[in-house]
This record gives sequence, structure tokens and C-alpha cells, in this order.
Amino acid sequence: MIMKVKEPLPSEFGLLKKDQIVFTYFHLAADKPLTIAMMESGITAIAYETVETRDGKTPLLTPMSEVAGRMAAQEGAKYLEKPMMGRGILLAGVPGVPQARVVIIGGGVVGANSAKIAAGLGAQVTILDTNLDRLRYLDDIMPKNVGTLMSNSLNIQERLKEADLVIGAVLIPGAKAPRVVTRAMLKLMKPGSVIVDVAIDQGGCLETSRPTTHADPVYIEERVVHYCVTNMPAAVAGTSTYALTNVTLPYALEIAGKGYARAAREDTALAKGLNTVGGALTCKPVAEAHGLEYRPLEDLLS
Amino acid sequence: MIMKVKEPLPSEFGLLKKDQIVFTYFHLAADKPLTIAMMESGITAIAYETVETRDGKTPLLTPMSEVAGRMAAQEGAKYLEKPMMGRGILLAGVPGVPQARVVIIGGGVVGANSAKIAAGLGAQVTILDTNLDRLRYLDDIMPKNVGTLMSNSLNIQERLKEADLVIGAVLIPGAKAPRVVTRAMLKLMKPGSVIVDVAIDQGGCLETSRPTTHADPVYIEERVVHYCVTNMPAAVAGTSTYALTNVTLPYALEIAGKGYARAAREDTALAKGLNTVGGALTCKPVAEAHGLEYRPLEDLLS
Amino acid sequence: MIMKVKEPLPSEFGLLKKDQIVFTYFHLAADKPLTIAMMESGITAIAYETVETRDGKTPLLTPMSEVAGRMAAQEGAKYLEKPMMGRGILLAGVPGVPQARVVIIGGGVVGANSAKIAAGLGAQVTILDTNLDRLRYLDDIMPKNVGTLMSNSLNIQERLKEADLVIGAVLIPGAKAPRVVTRAMLKLMKPGSVIVDVAIDQGGCLETSRPTTHADPVYIEERVVHYCVTNMPAAVAGTSTYALTNVTLPYALEIAGKGYARAAREDTALAKGLNTVGGALTCKPVAEAHGLEYRPLEDLLS
Amino acid sequence: MIMKVKEPLPSEFGLLKKDQIVFTYFHLAADKPLTIAMMESGITAIAYETVETRDGKTPLLTPMSEVAGRMAAQEGAKYLEKPMMGRGILLAGVPGVPQARVVIIGGGVVGANSAKIAAGLGAQVTILDTNLDRLRYLDDIMPKNVGTLMSNSLNIQERLKEADLVIGAVLIPGAKAPRVVTRAMLKLMKPGSVIVDVAIDQGGCLETSRPTTHADPVYIEERVVHYCVTNMPAAVAGTSTYALTNVTLPYALEIAGKGYARAAREDTALAKGLNTVGGALTCKPVAEAHGLEYRPLEDLLS
Amino acid sequence: MIMKVKEPLPSEFGLLKKDQIVFTYFHLAADKPLTIAMMESGITAIAYETVETRDGKTPLLTPMSEVAGRMAAQEGAKYLEKPMMGRGILLAGVPGVPQARVVIIGGGVVGANSAKIAAGLGAQVTILDTNLDRLRYLDDIMPKNVGTLMSNSLNIQERLKEADLVIGAVLIPGAKAPRVVTRAMLKLMKPGSVIVDVAIDQGGCLETSRPTTHADPVYIEERVVHYCVTNMPAAVAGTSTYALTNVTLPYALEIAGKGYARAAREDTALAKGLNTVGGALTCKPVAEAHGLEYRPLEDLLS
Amino acid sequence: MIMKVKEPLPSEFGLLKKDQIVFTYFHLAADKPLTIAMMESGITAIAYETVETRDGKTPLLTPMSEVAGRMAAQEGAKYLEKPMMGRGILLAGVPGVPQARVVIIGGGVVGANSAKIAAGLGAQVTILDTNLDRLRYLDDIMPKNVGTLMSNSLNIQERLKEADLVIGAVLIPGAKAPRVVTRAMLKLMKPGSVIVDVAIDQGGCLETSRPTTHADPVYIEERVVHYCVTNMPAAVAGTSTYALTNVTLPYALEIAGKGYARAAREDTALAKGLNTVGGALTCKPVAEAHGLEYRPLEDLLS
Repeated sequence: MIMKVKEPLPSEFGLLKKDQIVFTYFHLAADKPLTIAMMESGITAIAYETVETRDGKTPLLTPMSEVAGRMAAQEGAKYLEKPMMGRGILLAGVPGVPQARVVIIGGGVVGANSAKIAAGLGAQVTILDTNLDRLRYLDDIMPKNVGTLMSNSLNIQERLKEADLVIGAVLIPGAKAPRVVTRAMLKLMKPGSVIVDVAIDQGGCLETSRPTTHADPVYIEERVVHYCVTNMPAAVAGTSTYALTNVTLPYALEIAGKGYARAAREDTALAKGLNTVGGALTCKPVAEAHGLEYRPLEDLLS
Repeated sequence: MIMKVKEPLPSEFGLLKKDQIVFTYFHLAADKPLTIAMMESGITAIAYETVETRDGKTPLLTPMSEVAGRMAAQEGAKYLEKPMMGRGILLAGVPGVPQARVVIIGGGVVGANSAKIAAGLGAQVTILDTNLDRLRYLDDIMPKNVGTLMSNSLNIQERLKEADLVIGAVLIPGAKAPRVVTRAMLKLMKPGSVIVDVAIDQGGCLETSRPTTHADPVYIEERVVHYCVTNMPAAVAGTSTYALTNVTLPYALEIAGKGYARAAREDTALAKGLNTVGGALTCKPVAEAHGLEYRPLEDLLS
Repeated sequence: MIMKVKEPLPSEFGLLKKDQIVFTYFHLAADKPLTIAMMESGITAIAYETVETRDGKTPLLTPMSEVAGRMAAQEGAKYLEKPMMGRGILLAGVPGVPQARVVIIGGGVVGANSAKIAAGLGAQVTILDTNLDRLRYLDDIMPKNVGTLMSNSLNIQERLKEADLVIGAVLIPGAKAPRVVTRAMLKLMKPGSVIVDVAIDQGGCLETSRPTTHADPVYIEERVVHYCVTNMPAAVAGTSTYALTNVTLPYALEIAGKGYARAAREDTALAKGLNTVGGALTCKPVAEAHGLEYRPLEDLLS
Repeated sequence: MIMKVKEPLPSEFGLLKKDQIVFTYFHLAADKPLTIAMMESGITAIAYETVETRDGKTPLLTPMSEVAGRMAAQEGAKYLEKPMMGRGILLAGVPGVPQARVVIIGGGVVGANSAKIAAGLGAQVTILDTNLDRLRYLDDIMPKNVGTLMSNSLNIQERLKEADLVIGAVLIPGAKAPRVVTRAMLKLMKPGSVIVDVAIDQGGCLETSRPTTHADPVYIEERVVHYCVTNMPAAVAGTSTYALTNVTLPYALEIAGKGYARAAREDTALAKGLNTVGGALTCKPVAEAHGLEYRPLEDLLS
Repeated sequence: MIMKVKEPLPSEFGLLKKDQIVFTYFHLAADKPLTIAMMESGITAIAYETVETRDGKTPLLTPMSEVAGRMAAQEGAKYLEKPMMGRGILLAGVPGVPQARVVIIGGGVVGANSAKIAAGLGAQVTILDTNLDRLRYLDDIMPKNVGTLMSNSLNIQERLKEADLVIGAVLIPGAKAPRVVTRAMLKLMKPGSVIVDVAIDQGGCLETSRPTTHADPVYIEERVVHYCVTNMPAAVAGTSTYALTNVTLPYALEIAGKGYARAAREDTALAKGLNTVGGALTCKPVAEAHGLEYRPLEDLLS
Repeated sequence: MIMKVKEPLPSEFGLLKKDQIVFTYFHLAADKPLTIAMMESGITAIAYETVETRDGKTPLLTPMSEVAGRMAAQEGAKYLEKPMMGRGILLAGVPGVPQARVVIIGGGVVGANSAKIAAGLGAQVTILDTNLDRLRYLDDIMPKNVGTLMSNSLNIQERLKEADLVIGAVLIPGAKAPRVVTRAMLKLMKPGSVIVDVAIDQGGCLETSRPTTHADPVYIEERVVHYCVTNMPAAVAGTSTYALTNVTLPYALEIAGKGYARAAREDTALAKGLNTVGGALTCKPVAEAHGLEYRPLEDLLS
């Protein structure tokens, strides 16, 4: 069994051997050549991103959302600096100079973690979400400089007007992120304000978002600084690797101890992680995405 | 020695006897008949409000400022209700509905106590003051929903625009309060917003303030609700009396133990409290206010 | 479709037209003339208060409980003032004078929201509830001046003795509130202390409660001030309307998009909200309350 | 130069050599034999406890007060346990069972440090002090389960009635502690409640206090457990030694670098620490206490 | 019906009468003579510890875990003192001297309650658990001096190296506690550091744990102080009894009102509590533990 | 009168006219050509950095220290990222992964402001200072994840070993910063850890510090990332300008209203700001630094 963080590179395809188990992020639905390579190699590919519990949670993705969420506030603070193209504002203010206003669209894992850090930096924070029960919980546990607001187009626009930093945190695991901020809405914002779009790995939740890299992280649209780095957690690999191992290791031990077949039979979440088994494609969405033959897992495990 | 909270009423003048010591609030500078009555009675009048330490503090006034400051936020919350003529806003908001914005002009005893309560009520609070060292201390100790801002006309105007509740807390012991909010500035405010002018006992810090009573506490000017009740602490007499006794009792014991003459010689703060001594007027500002003869205290105590 | 906050007034009955949908609070079970008027008008009446999820939650009532809960502490603080007939106590106290003691009976939505505000006002707060798991959660998230206590008759009596303010927050959606404080227990309380009975809309949780209005909010029984205003949230209509719209709008959009019939078939919570459909009475408890004919919803939607 | 924590033991007297400097706690005023031994040895004795700044602070005693204060709450918690003779109460309570009430008499260094820990343990804490400015500062910085109260006999009695734990923290450096709790007042307390008298090193602030040891720390009077261990910080020598060295080391370096004579001439606080100089007794209170000859320091340093 | 806290003593066996219901802690599986005595007496024994809800919770054990958890930090603080054999460290430190480090293994009821108190005492706290969702919740609600860490052997060892106090809080209701700290791991710890093993009632979660008593609570292994008192809550019987009654009383009222038979039929949690019914043994694990005849409850209740 | 933020550039020298007042940062002691140019121009130069109150405070420098302090933690967080050459650690950690450790050397304005932000970012923070009274105040007001430690070489070394981020905040207004971290000590640190030297404007408090710019902010020595940007506040010019104007404006108004001569006579702090008066050099340290003639201010103002 091979355990990694990233999918196999083409240069590594030749090294894979039949009967090996590879347990890593694969994202096969977006990569046909990789899919075919995995099928041809005859390995059993277990993908972090498709491990899914009965109640729809994706436990191997959550830690990355936590890391990205916490980073988002920190990146926003940095790119608000003048030499970084921002409007030259300190989130915290100082005594006698007001703190900045941070607007977080989305109150899930990413948004809540962003809010903790933005609040800690001393800003005045508003979290918008459509799930009122979630907002109630956030109201219970957040520090007092965090407010909650029902998310709708009108409220978003009102808040964009006074925001110094916006964090886009509307993302649904496995789906394309909804576009909640349009180019027109961007024009309401103050020049030099900053948007961090954490949903960029799923297409971004702004009309004006396009993927950037840690090497060249920001660009400007409508006079607003956009930070849209894909795979944000890679910048804090030390923390991310620990966080990821915390959740993958128990599965790895299960697989190692019982073999993947029995482990998958006994744990439906893990079963969902099996994308290829000995060359057969067992993940329906991947099969459909590439027009390849789908083999139900049940047929192969028994 | 008689200890009271309020000055003697005309009906009580006849009851005062020579050689009695009366230790209470007098405010003689504003009341010539009372001054003359006290002189004629031959009593020794020691006024709470003129007891003053070497560094200019008035220890017998501070507790009332604390009470009034804490009440101010509570009154503001109440008069923001619709049936009270306010705009029908809950300071705290609820999950999904934003908290109100409270602006406190003045960060002294009154302002700091108002801020604690307004913040506790869940509002987003800004304290303005011209003393940056004071703002730094407030930044150290206040909860995170309280921000600080240098007080100047521009900043006040900016904040009035978005305020739901304004607390006027600019007052200087023994002096007329400066008028920091003009009628014109009031027009920037939202209709139905509320102003509590805690400085009203010293003339008020708004152009539009005029004294009201607990029986009829509010009126409207420029569509803004004004709460300008004089002697606010009277409404919570239970708390106020305790608070006052905490500070007056040690002086009373000093007077009772040593006699007023020795007590005043040994404690310059108390000496400043002596307004009349056996019929002679020993408080210069009172003498000047009414054109009466002033007798230096030193001449009488030796 | 007409969306309102309050039920139609008699003067509006004539304006209603067959085939209209009216989506508002109705409380038909308590108002036979209104019920008959709605039936005769031929409209489809969808009542906020009977929308109910499978797990028994009433999502369109919760925001009003949050508003009322937060208001309760603020009202209690106000009516403790002397001119309001209270004992003249400031909830917060001041340095050197103890804070007041607030007892909250019921730790649900109302009680928890009351406790947040009472604690913010600086009082020493105790929440009583019979649900220990709820008390554990409150112990996790409440500020440190909030304690929790198992609710039973003995504990309530002990706490009433030292309470300055009691908030009655024992209410069960759709049912008559239990009477947890008797007249005899009231006699244990200090004269001039205050009770706010938030359960008054469901009959009140005190033996001595009777409904009052925002115009004349309090009365005295057993020397204790009673604040028993029905429809408390109306006083902060600005906040309440936002809070209500946050929860009703998604339902309204569902109805508008699919028609009420399909919307009700697909969403059992909404289906429970349908009280009359084209003149037929589809809410069993209402039918039973008034001895009118009940028509099962299923017969009408297919 | 010899630096220690405790005074020289009789067995060590012979080891002391003329011209040595011994820098430690001496407490000579309470120990005539030690005083004479130091004089005869010809050493220069610099006593931690008499180093005193111009404004009356004793910087080498403060850290021990901090340690003792923090320990006090912890000892109180422990001796409230049943097997320790206490009433079997957990300071924190648990959800559904009320927290205990802790009364701290004295809000100085000891009291404030006790309050932090008692509050952290989850108790409901009241600090009594006669200095209102101190109470105001404590009100600013303490957690919300700490209240402040003017200290006087009446208030102390009221609080004793409901206290589970009382911490006596009324002590004045270098003076006998005042007796603020009499035997009669003790009778108001609940059986099995606990008193920790941190002032015991200065005679104790209770009528019923008598010194105990870490080996046998508690006894019972009037059914109240008394913890009156002298030299409390010795039990946490690890922490105490660090804390003490933090403040003594700068003085030691000064003495080592300049010699004691020049160091004392340049630093009046240190000068006050010199108790004997080459056999002469230079500390007036010690001389007076034992009827020994006093030699002014000035005569010896020039 | 007899309600107690502890199991009947042999001296009490003769007092039990047929048809009585005894509702208390029994722990029959560990005590064959008691089991036989209960069977012979003909009573109905309902055991607190086997009352169990459908989702596996044991509501009558939880309060004792809360009490023990909160006590654990307090005991640790005490036994770190030098005269108690600890390393003489104050958990809180003082300004200028670092706070101690507390490591809590297990983040369930015991661990979370320990952490609250240890954090309140001012220590730097780390909670280890294998359940990441639990750690996320703890991260939301704990004060800022509490960190969370995935529990595994490596992380435990790393933390033991720098720990001053370790709290063993890994326990599974009704099962033997896993041994998470071996003797070898203990050798990594600093001499004089303290371990409190709250899991001792279930065998302890350290290799070196063995039961002690309140009379003789600690012993030393590998230079580490072990506090392994069984039945910790007995030391704070005042608090424990209240906490226990809060949860047992509702069951007692149910039994008293309906009779045990109907009460057990209607409440499966209570049914699990029935260990003997009129002499028959109805608790399977107890029957198996002692090789006695088991009678299904269903046969006896109908 | 001309008010600026930075000193006049050589290109601006020709524009200055006799009798003009220039009120800005000058730093003349470090720039002989500028000094001579100012003398030759005949202007009156009032330098922000030498305005100094009687008690040695430099009120026009403090706001910049506040800004730099708050920025420092934010910069440290950013440069800990892998692409920034740091060790790839998130200060906050995530649930299950420990937070980073931040060591702040110096607890003055810079250090305290750094600590607030670092603590807000969720790190475990230690502040070292030699002033124990300052540490006591910080202990009172800081969040619970901030500890205090006496600053000395040993303690610094111990803490460097486990630090992820070090903030050098040891600076004395107007003096060269002491070198508290040597190259040798740096070798104790973990590779990829980060040091932010806020004292760099005064020469830096590390042996290995050398000035960098916002354009090229970091370099590596001994495998530790050094951020030593001079004039850090320039990056947040929006905030800095407000903060500076808050303190300079009152002086400017004083000068404008009274003329510099009377203003300086009446305000000794401002008088210290006068560096040149009509061509004469009135600041002794500047005169000494460059061997130029010094003219006492008194001679020129009368």
C-alpha cells in the first residue's frame, strides 16, 4: 500500500504494480489520462476525496478546509498591505483608528475557521449563511466581534460596500461552487479591498475568480485585489500533513489490517473511496464523466 | 451631624440648628436662596460635590457617574423600542439579523461604564475620546465588540450616520459640558435613533438637549429620540445609595471622630468640601457666583 | 399570494379573494370568527405558527422566541427602576456594590437568549431546566457569570428568595405553558423585584400572570412587578421583521415557484402550515377547537 | 556574597565569616538570637523583606504574595473535600448543581491573585476591599464571575453567611494584619466551610487564626476548617524560587558589581535592606524591637 | 422503594424484604456474594450503572464523570506540591514564571471537565483524543489556553516529556479502560510530575495504576506521583449527591408512579437497569460473570 | 507651516523658505547633509521623534510602535509559509494539530501589541521582559494563551529552542536597541522558523539583523527567516496616517494658534521637538552627533 498526498504523476505511472493499493487524493473525474493509467496499472485506487460517510460528510477533505479557512484571514490581512496592492489597512486598527471590516460569505467549515482568525486579528467580522441553525451555533461560540447575517443577494451587496476584506467560503463538497458575487457587485467595493476566494478549487464563488498560484497569488479586477490560490494548504505543508494524517491513518490501518476488500465491506465510507479495483472502474461519477465502463463495487468485493 | 443625599428643602430650613454639620449634595453655586439659608442657619455645610483631591478628582461624584453610565446603555436600549418612539431595533440583533451600532462620545467614567453595558447587550460599540492614553487602556480591557476612535468633529459625524444609539458622555466635573453634537449633525442620523445625554446635569453635550424627568423622560428633535433625564441615578436609588455611602461613610467617620475642623486640616480633599462654616461662606466659587462675602477657610479653622 | 406578519383584520375580510394564498400568523384555534371568515373567503391560509418539521420544530416561531428572550432581560432591567415600580436596582451594580441576581426558569431558546443578555448586563445569572443535556451545553457556551441548576420546585423556591429579576421562559410550542411559579412562591420574593413572563402568549408560566400590552406593560401582585406583555417582539418591529423574513422568505419562494399544492406535497413542514385550502378547513386542531368540519389535506392536494 | 531563601540556621552561624555579605530573608525583628549572631559574625546582612522603594513597595515580598494568593484558592478547594474535614463541595459545581461561593477579604496582590484562580475554578467570587479605585480596576480586568464589594464589617458578615470558602487577604507589608473576622462572625458560617488565612505570616486576619504547617495544615474552630500555613510558597518551591530570583537577581548583580556600599548609596531601596553592616545594627525597627544599639547607615557607608 | 448511593452492605442484607425495590449503584458483576444476597432477598434491584439509553449513553454515570473530571485538575494541582511529593510547581505560575503544562488524555466527559478546570487554574492545557469531531467541538468552546491534539502513541509520548500534570481520562462506560500510558513511557516524564488516573474505577488507563483511597491517595512509580483514588466523587459528597439526585429522581418518580414493571416496559433505559426481579437475575452480563441462571426480563414483566 | 510624514528629500531642499515651519519626522542625528540643509534654509524644523514629555514618553512615536507591533505577528504568520521560505506552519494549528509557539522579546508598546495579534491568531505566546510590573499588567489584561516570563539570557535561549516565530521588540526610544539574540543563540532555533525584528529602525535587537525593504523583506541566516523591514508602518499607510494624525494634529493646532515660540514656551514636550530655529541648531544630541554648533532654545525663544 502506498500512501501519498498528491495523485501519481505521469512519470510515476510506470512504477505502479498490479495489486498495489494507492491511497491518496486522485480527483479522477477531472483527469481522464490519469483514470486510464490507473485502470491499466491494475492497482486499487482509494481516493481521499470520495471517502464519504452515510450522512454525506467527507472526513478526508474537512482538515484541508480548516487549514484553508484559517489561512484565508491571514492572507487577506497580508494582501491588504500597500506593497501587496491592497489599500494599506491594518485589520486590527490601533487605539483611536477603527478596525477593518471583514465579510465572510459562507458559515461552514471554511467560513467558521476564517472567522475565528479574522476575529482574533481584531477585525469586525460578519458571517453570512443561509442556514439559520448554523448561524445560531456560530452566535453561541464566536467571540463578540463576530456578527451573523442571513445570506441573500441584498445583504451581500450591503456588506460589500463597507468591507475591507471579503472571504468567499461558499463551497459544497464535490460540486461546483455557486457564484454569489458578480462583477457588478464588485464595483460596490472600496478600491484596494481584498477578496480571498477559498472556493477556487471548486471553481470559485465569484464571477471574477480565476485560479492563481502561491508563486503569483493575486491579480486585480474592478480595483479589488483577488487572492485565488488553488491548494492553499500546500503553503503550510507542515500543518496540513499532520492534519491530513490524523484522518487518513485510521483508514490506512484498517486497510492494512483487514485488506481493502473486508475493510470496504465493513465501512461504507471507505467503500466509497474505492475508485478502481484491480483495473476495474468502481466509481460511477468518474465512469460517467469519461464515458468509461462502470463496475459496481459489490461485484468485485464478494 | 446630618448626612443626606439631597440638599435641604425650604421646608427643612427651620429645622437646622447652629453648630450642626450637614453633609450632603448642596450645589450652592446654582441656588442663592439655599446659600443664604445655610449661612443664616449657622450650620457647617459640607458639600459632596466640592470634595476634591489634590489631583483634581471628585471622589464623591464618581459613583454617580458609574451608575449613570451603566444606566445610559439600558435606557438607550429601552427607548429604541417602537412604543417608546424609537426605531424598533433590538441592540443585540438575533442570529441572522445584525446587532445595532452604539456610539459613545467620551471615554471617561461615564463612557467606559456605558460601553461595558452596551457591549454586554451585544451591540457593536465605538468609544470616541481625545485622550489617546485613555483609549489605549480601554482597548486593553474592553470586550472585542468595542472599538476606539479619536474624537473630533469629522469622526463624530461619520459615526452618527450609522449609529442607532448615541451616548453623550462628555462631561468635565464642575464645568459646563462642551456641545459636541450640533443640531445640524443630528440631521445625519437615522430617524428613530436615540441619544442619551448623560451630561445633562452639566448642561448637556448636545445643542438640542434640554432637561427631562423620570416621569417624562424623552422628546424628539430632528426625528431623533432624546433622553435627557437629570439625576439619572435616582431611578436606581437602591444601587445609588449603596454606591454613595461607600464613598461618603469614610469621610463621615473622619468628621465624627475628629470634628470637622481637625478633619479638614488633615485632609485637604475634605477641606474643599466645606462650603459654609458657622454661617461664614468658605467656598470661593459660590461666593463669586452670588456676590457674597468669601471667608478663607484657614481663618476659621485655626 | 399575500405575505403579512399579523392575521387579517375584520375590515380586511372583504378584500380577500378566492384563490389567493395568505401566508401569515393566523392563530385560528383561538379565533372562530376569523376561521369562518377565512373559510368563507375561499382563500388558502398558510399559518406561520403551524409550520412544523418532522422533529417537532416550529422554524417560523423560533426567531420570535429569540427576540422575546433577548428583550426579556432588557425589560427586566428597565422595570427594576424605581419610577417603573421596581426596587430601584441596577442589574450590573457598580464597583463596590453587588450585581443583581437574575433567575431564568427554562433553558430553551427563550431562556438561553435571555441569559446571554442578562449576563452581558453584568448580572449574576442562574438558568433552571429539567433537561440536563441542555444545561451541559449552556455550561459550555455561556459566560462565566451564568450558572445552571436542575429545575424543580424546591430549587425554584430557593432561587426566588434571592432573585431581583425572574424570567419565566418555560414554554412548549403549541401547548399551554406549565405553571411553575405559584402565588405562594411569589411571596418568597423581595418586594419590588420583577418577573418577566415570556410564556404569556401561551398562557404564562406563573399563576399570577395575566396578559398586558406595550401601552400598559406592568402590574403588581404580591409586591412583585409583573411584565406580561403579549407579542413582545412587536416593540422591536425593525429587528423582528428581518428575523421573520429570514425564515419565511424561503417558504414563500417555494410556494411562488411550485404552487402551494406541489410545495406542500414535497415539504411536510409546509404542509402542516396549510390551515384552509379553498374554503376547506385542513387543520385538525382548529377544526376540533371550533367544532367545524375537518378535511384531510391529502384529499385536497391530489 | 551568599544568597539564600531562608535565614541562617543556628548550625550555620559558625560558618559565617566577617566581610561576607548574606542576602536572604532574615526577619530579625522577630528573632533576637539570630540578630545577635549576625552582629557577632561581623557579616553584612541584607534582608529581602526590608528592601523598600520610596513609594513604600517591598519588591522582594511581592512575588511571594502572588504565589500565596494563587495557592490560596487551590488549598481552599482541596480542604473543602470531605476527607479533608470540609463540607464536601466542589468549587465549580457541575451542570445542574450550583458553583460554590468564595469570599476574598482584601483586593491587593494576594486577593487579586486568589480571585483569578478561584474564578478559574468556576466559583462565584466576591472581593471586598476598602479602596474603591482598586475595586474599579479589578472590575475592569477580572472575569465575569468576580464581583466587588466595599469592605466593612456589615458586608463581611453578610457574605460570610453564604460563603463556602473565605480567603483572608488583608495584610499590610511589615505590619500586623488587622483582625477583620472575629470568632462571633465565624459562627455565621456554614459548618464545614473553609477559611484560608494568607495573612498568617503577619499574625493572621482572623481572631481564630493560629499558625499551622504544611505537615499539619488545618484545624477546626467553630466548625469552620482553618488553613493557616505559614510560608505557604514553600510548598511550590519550584515556582517560588524562580519568582524570587526574578526580583533578587538584579539586586545581587548590583551588589556584586559595585560593592554593597556604593550599591546602597545609589539605590535607597537596597539601602533599606541593610540590617547589619560589619557587626553594626543598621535597621532601626530591629534595634528597637530588641533594645540593641542602632547605628545609622549613613555613618557606616561614607 | 429504597434509594441509596452505595450498594447494600452485608450487615444490611438481613434488612431487605421481598417486594422491596432497591435503586442504587450495585456493580453486581464484580461482586458474586452481593448478587446472591440480592437474589435470595427477593427484592427488585435496579442498578444506576446499567440504566442505558438506546444510543448507548449511561445517564446515571455521567454526573459522576463530570464531578471526577473537575476534581482531577484540582487534585493534580494539590499533589504537585512538594509536601505532597510533587515537584513543587504552581499550575498557574506567576507573572514572570511560566505556567505549568497539563496533558489530558481523553476528551470525553471526564477530559472536557478536567480541561475546563485546568485551564481556569491558568495552566497550558492539551487534550488528546482520537475523535476529531469531538476535538473540533472542544476547539470551539474551550478557553484559549487549551489546545487539541490527535491521540496516538507518538503524540502522547511527545507530550509526556514536557508535562507537569497528566490526567488519564480514557474510559469507556462499562468496559475496561485501555492502557494508553506504559511504564516505559512514564520514564520520559519529569521527576515529581503527577498523574491522575480518573479511569481507575475501570481498571485505570496507565500500566502503573493501582487503586488508592482518599485516606492514602498517592504513591510513586518511576518518580512520578500517581493519584488513583477510586470513587473520587465521594470526597465532594455534597456536590455529588445533588448531581446524582438530579438524574435519579425522575426515574424514581417514574417507578413510584407506575410501579417498576410498567415503568420498565415504557422506558427501555430503565428496563436495562433491572438487575434482579423478585429473586430472578435479569441482567445477562452479571449472570455470565458469575455463572448464574439468567431470566429474560420480558418473561417477568408481562 | 508644512506638515509631512517623511523628512524633506534633497530635491525639496530648494523649495524651503526662511520662516517656514516644517513639522515632520527628521531623524537629523543620522543625516548630516539634511541637518546642514535645514540650517541653511533658515526654517524652523520640529521633529516628531524628539517631542518628549517630562516623564520621557515620545507621544509621536507611540502610534507607529502600535502599528508595527500589530503588523509583526501578521508578517510572522505570513513568512512562516513554505513559499515564503518558512517552515510551512500555520500559527493557529487546526483541531488535532498543535498551535505554533510565538516568543516576544520585549513587553512594551510593540511587544504588547504583537502579543494581542499573535494570541488572536491562536498561537501559544510568551512575552519576555525585565520589568516585572509590566509583566503583571500584561498578565491582567492578556488572553489566556499569553504567558509572561522574566527576560534574561537563559530564558531567551530556552524559549528560542521551541519557538516557531520570534518577535524582537526590545527597543528604547532614541537609543540603539540592545542585541538580545546572538548568532549563536539563533542556532538553537528550528530551521525555517521566523524572526521579525521590529527594533530594526533602531539598529535591530538581533546580532544577525540587517535592514530590508517592503520590496525584498526577508533573508535567511542560520536557517532562520529574518524579516527586518525598516519603516514597517508604511505598508499600512491608510491606518498609519490616521494614527499619526491623531497625535500630531493637536500639536499642529497649538503651533498654528500660538506661533511656535509661545507654543514651545508653554509646552516643554513640544519645545524638545524644535531641532532648528531660523537656521540655528537647537537640538543638543544632533549638534554633538555632527560636531555642529548648538544654540540653547531658551536664547532663541525669548
